This record gives sequence, C-alpha cells and structure tokens, in this order.
Amino acid sequence: MRGAVLHAPGDVRFEERDDPKILQPTDAIIRISATCVCGSDLWDYRGINPVNQATPMGHEYVGVVEEIGDDVTTIKPGQFVIGSFFASDNTCPICQAGYQSRCVHSEYVGAGGAQAELLRVPLADGTLVATPDTPSVDLIPSLLAASDVLGTGWYGAVAAEAGPGKTVAVVGDGAVGLLAVLAAKQLGAEQIIAMSRHEPRQKLAREFGATDIVTERGDEGVARIKDLTDGLGAHSVIEAVGTQESMMQAIRSTRPGGHVGYVGVSHGVQLPGEELFFSATHLHGGPAPVRRFLPEMIDLIWQRRIDPGKVFDLTLPLDQAAEGYAAMDERRAIKTLLQP
Amino acid sequence: MRGAVLHAPGDVRFEERDDPKILQPTDAIIRISATCVCGSDLWDYRGINPVNQATPMGHEYVGVVEEIGDDVTTIKPGQFVIGSFFASDNTCPICQAGYQSRCVHSEYVGAGGAQAELLRVPLADGTLVATPDTPSVDLIPSLLAASDVLGTGWYGAVAAEAGPGKTVAVVGDGAVGLLAVLAAKQLGAEQIIAMSRHEPRQKLAREFGATDIVTERGDEGVARIKDLTDGLGAHSVIEAVGTQESMMQAIRSTRPGGHVGYVGVSHGVQLPGEELFFSATHLHGGPAPVRRFLPEMIDLIWQRRIDPGKVFDLTLPLDQAAEGYAAMDERRAIKTLLQP
Repeated sequence: MRGAVLHAPGDVRFEERDDPKILQPTDAIIRISATCVCGSDLWDYRGINPVNQATPMGHEYVGVVEEIGDDVTTIKPGQFVIGSFFASDNTCPICQAGYQSRCVHSEYVGAGGAQAELLRVPLADGTLVATPDTPSVDLIPSLLAASDVLGTGWYGAVAAEAGPGKTVAVVGDGAVGLLAVLAAKQLGAEQIIAMSRHEPRQKLAREFGATDIVTERGDEGVARIKDLTDGLGAHSVIEAVGTQESMMQAIRSTRPGGHVGYVGVSHGVQLPGEELFFSATHLHGGPAPVRRFLPEMIDLIWQRRIDPGKVFDLTLPLDQAAEGYAAMDERRAIKTLLQP
Repeated sequence: MRGAVLHAPGDVRFEERDDPKILQPTDAIIRISATCVCGSDLWDYRGINPVNQATPMGHEYVGVVEEIGDDVTTIKPGQFVIGSFFASDNTCPICQAGYQSRCVHSEYVGAGGAQAELLRVPLADGTLVATPDTPSVDLIPSLLAASDVLGTGWYGAVAAEAGPGKTVAVVGDGAVGLLAVLAAKQLGAEQIIAMSRHEPRQKLAREFGATDIVTERGDEGVARIKDLTDGLGAHSVIEAVGTQESMMQAIRSTRPGGHVGYVGVSHGVQLPGEELFFSATHLHGGPAPVRRFLPEMIDLIWQRRIDPGKVFDLTLPLDQAAEGYAAMDERRAIKTLLQP
C-alpha cells in the first residue's frame, strides 16, 4: 500500500509502505475512506517535535473494516467505522470513568500512520464505533472530524463545563477551537466568544455558534474577555493551542471558580503555581478521550444536526499529502481532508 | 490593646498596638476569644516570605462582637462569631458561586492581625457567621479550627471530589492535611490514605478517619499509592503543603480522570505543562472559600459530630505567642492555640 511519510521537517512523501497486518487477535485492519492532517502533525512537520526517523503520519481516520483478529467480536468486516487516535479496551476502570485516551492498555493508533490506504487498529472492539449503515458521501467529512478534532473540541467544552447560562471563551481558531465553539453551542452555552483574528475562521466560528469575536491576544485579549463579562472573566474557557501564551491567556480569562478545559498539546508550558493558586480556577484537559463522545457525535452527524466537516476547507487526493501539509502550515487552509 | 507582631524572621513580639476602629460602615470589631498560629504564618516566620516591616500576625479567629458599623444588619454586638481570613460580601456573583475568598470586594482580614485582643472584620454581614448561642468552652478549639484549617482541609477534600466509593490520598500532615482527612471521612470516602512519617500525626490521622498510612515521599510515595490502588492512583488527592515536590507527588498519585484538590499556598511551584496534560487529572484549589462551608462545619461541631479542635496540641496564653511559633517551627507542636 501507499502512505504519507515524514522524512524531515517539511519533507512529507507519499510512498510505498508494507501493508499492515493483524498482530494481535484484538486488531482490525481498515481500508481508509478519508483521513486528514492534524494541527498536531504540524509540530512534527515544523520540526518543533524532533523527527529522528522516517515516520508514517496521520492519526485521524474513517474507513471500512477489511479484516479482524480472532478475538474481535463486535466489529465486523464491511462495517464503516470511526475510531480515535488512542486505542482503548473500553472496559478498564479508567475507560469506564470516561478516560479512554488513558486506558491501561492504550496504544497510539497513529503509530501505524493513518494517512495511508490501510491502517491497523488495535483493540478494535473497544476502539472502533460503527455507523448505523454505510454513510452517504457528504457525511464523510463530518464523521472524519469526529475521529479527532470534533472529539477534542467537544472534550475541551466538557472539561470547561460549558453549558446553559455559561459564557464560554475559546482560545485558538484552528479546527479544534472552531469545533469547541460548535460543542459549546450543542452543550447549551449562552454566550460563546471566539478569539480569532482571521476572517474566514471568524466566519466559521459564527456559523458554529459564536456570539462574539475577540481579535486581541495576550493581556489585551484577557481585558476584552473581562469587558464582555462584567469584569469577572468567562465561566468556561477552552484552550486549543498548547503554548505558554495561550494557556496563560486561558487561565487569566477565567473567573474565580470557573473552568479551563485545555486540549492543545502542551509544548514548553510551565504554569506558575502561585498565579494558578490565586486564580481559583479549575484546570482539566489532556489528550481527549474521543471514544467517550463518539456515539453521541456520530448520532448528531447522522441526524444532520451538526456539520463539523465544514472545517475541511481543502480536499486533496492522498497522494498530494505534501501539499495538504504545506497549505495548513502556511495557514492557507484550516484543515486538509485527504482521499485515498 | 496588645497583639503579636513579627519584626524579623524568628522575632515575634507581644506588644501594645492601637485598638482597631470601625473604618467602614460595614465593619465589625470583635473581641478575640481564641486565635492560633497557622502553617502559612511560618512562611513569614522562617523568612521564606520577606518581612519588610513590623507585621501584626494572625488570620484565624473566633470571638464576641463588640461594635458594628452603621450598615451592619445581620451581625449584632454580643454574638459569638467565626469568620474566614478573607472578608467577602457573600452577594457578588463570585461569592454566589461559592468562591468567597475571591469575592470582588474581598479584603484580607489578617491584615489587622488576629493574634490580638481585638480585630476589625470588614464586610461583617457577609464574612461572619454567628453560633446558635454562646458556645461551651470545650467547643471553642473546634470552632476556631473552622476559621481556617478545617475550612481549608474541607475545601481541599471538596476540590478533590472526595466522596462515596472514592480512594482519597492526602499529601501533607499539618493541621490542614489532617483535617482534610476528617473532611474526606465526612464526605463519605471509602479509603483514606494519609501520607505522614510522624507518629503523633499518624495517630491523629487515624482518629480522623485515615484507613492507611504511607510514610514514603516523592516517587516512592507515589509508588506506594499506586500499590494501594491497583496500579491506577487515587481518585482524589488533596495537596496541603504548597511545594514543588508535594504538588508533583499529588499529581502523580492521581489516576487519569481523577481530581487533585490543592490548598497548600504555592511557593516556587512551576507545573510542567506536558506532564500535567498527559496526567489527564483535574486540578482545582487555591485560597479556600471557607465562608462557603462555615454553616455546615459549625453545625457539625455544635452537634459534636466532629472534633477538629484535636489538631491543637499546644495551648498558650496569647502573650506567649513567640513560643507558639517556635514550637510549630520546630515541629514540637502540630498547631498552637492562643488565648487572650
């Protein structure tokens, strides 16, 4: 089969790779229907995460089950399935508490490289969720979004306790931040403030439910959030970037007793204990347990009540993966969908 | 009147000070019945917090209302009252959400120095809670504990979401940590692990409800907590110290999806963002909104269902405040009660 491989910063190649095989009796092999490039892939692409060897890329996927291991009982060949970037048994106490991304048997699905024609998914029964039927083509982008960016934005909104009567601010206007807006809206938030200085992203944020746009960043951004919330700060702030500046902007935009849901993968962040202490905020986040939300998200997409696939503003054949990365790196695209 | 004043690290003097006066119509003046030395006073006493000028000490108090300002309506002269170290209006949106320590009008009561014969309490109606009647003398230590250490330990347990079916670990065996054990017990926790290497404190922890004692610290302490929790970590961990080591011990002792309630005032703490992210824990804490819990705590004490006053293992006349500090500094006493 063929797939995207990162050889060095900025050097993504679409090339021949070995077909994945069933390694454990709990594995499944799926034929990818659609995959995409993640904001977190750009950490590697930009060389911020070191690239020490040729690395198969991608961890977001929807597809059709091709083969299953002997112990797989609920997932069947031919089913259209969606899974998360972390495989989970969905039965351990951590999974049962809703933290499947930290399952005691968790395994990074992306290790196999989902930007490819075929993908091995470990712990198939616990990881994959089948759609009610083969989806119509127009639903595929939204179902693909559920695999990571929607699930991550949703988790950010849940971790920030977005809900009725709440003012929610979102730091970060990438696909995750935009879909956190959508999630906050679904969860019933009253006021949703998207922090963005990019016109096309502001527009999408409004479509997804943002009531206010704040273009300022850092201390000025915090001041604007305070202006919009009687000087108190937002009840719920979703952090979807992962830098020191964005984390501090999120914490400082939150009122005492409010909730920060942080889902941007932390890079070089050091949180000052004393400031955090006196902020009296709640801090919760981490790698999203997307599996927790998949059934609900799939149902909403299936009923066409949400359209998270709108974050894909560039669709390319998989063999043009390199251009998909470049477009996102240069912020010409919010998110690139790749079709095998 | 006379009161305790810190002149330099290690130099506490009991000396003549001006009587406090009503400065705002919302103030009350109370005559102190009992006060005490706090673990956080030791940060000043030890010179870890800089001491730049002679500083009246103390922020924990119970006493009898002597005088009230013209706008005080619910608190009356002659009442026996308890308040927190932060004055609060108890009506602003932050107070109404239960975060009175971050009231939009909050004021540090300790600025007046509660280790004295008289104390000015701002925002008396919102800050002070009267007991049903004049308490019998044996209840006074427990009521005094409610002013800070019980309220802070209680908040730690609430912030860590201690409750039925939960395993709770407590990092720190000072008065706050010990009373966090008591609070976890009251909140219905199933297993309560006190981390302590001091025999008298272990004994008190067991009296308050600890089911297990862990004497190891740091990585070894974390490993012991994992041993006691099927390798997963505790559901709830209360941090009651405030150092880098104790915060990391608390975070690492918590299972993914679990809750850290941190109430030790942070000193020099820097939390590594990436580790925190992948811990997938909840982090909540800060200066305890003691006022939120005062009615419930007073009621439990009044009914003699809890006896938090046991943390006072040294009682001295107020004029021997210096010895009270020395005894706690040298860990000869857990907590010193001072009687005017």
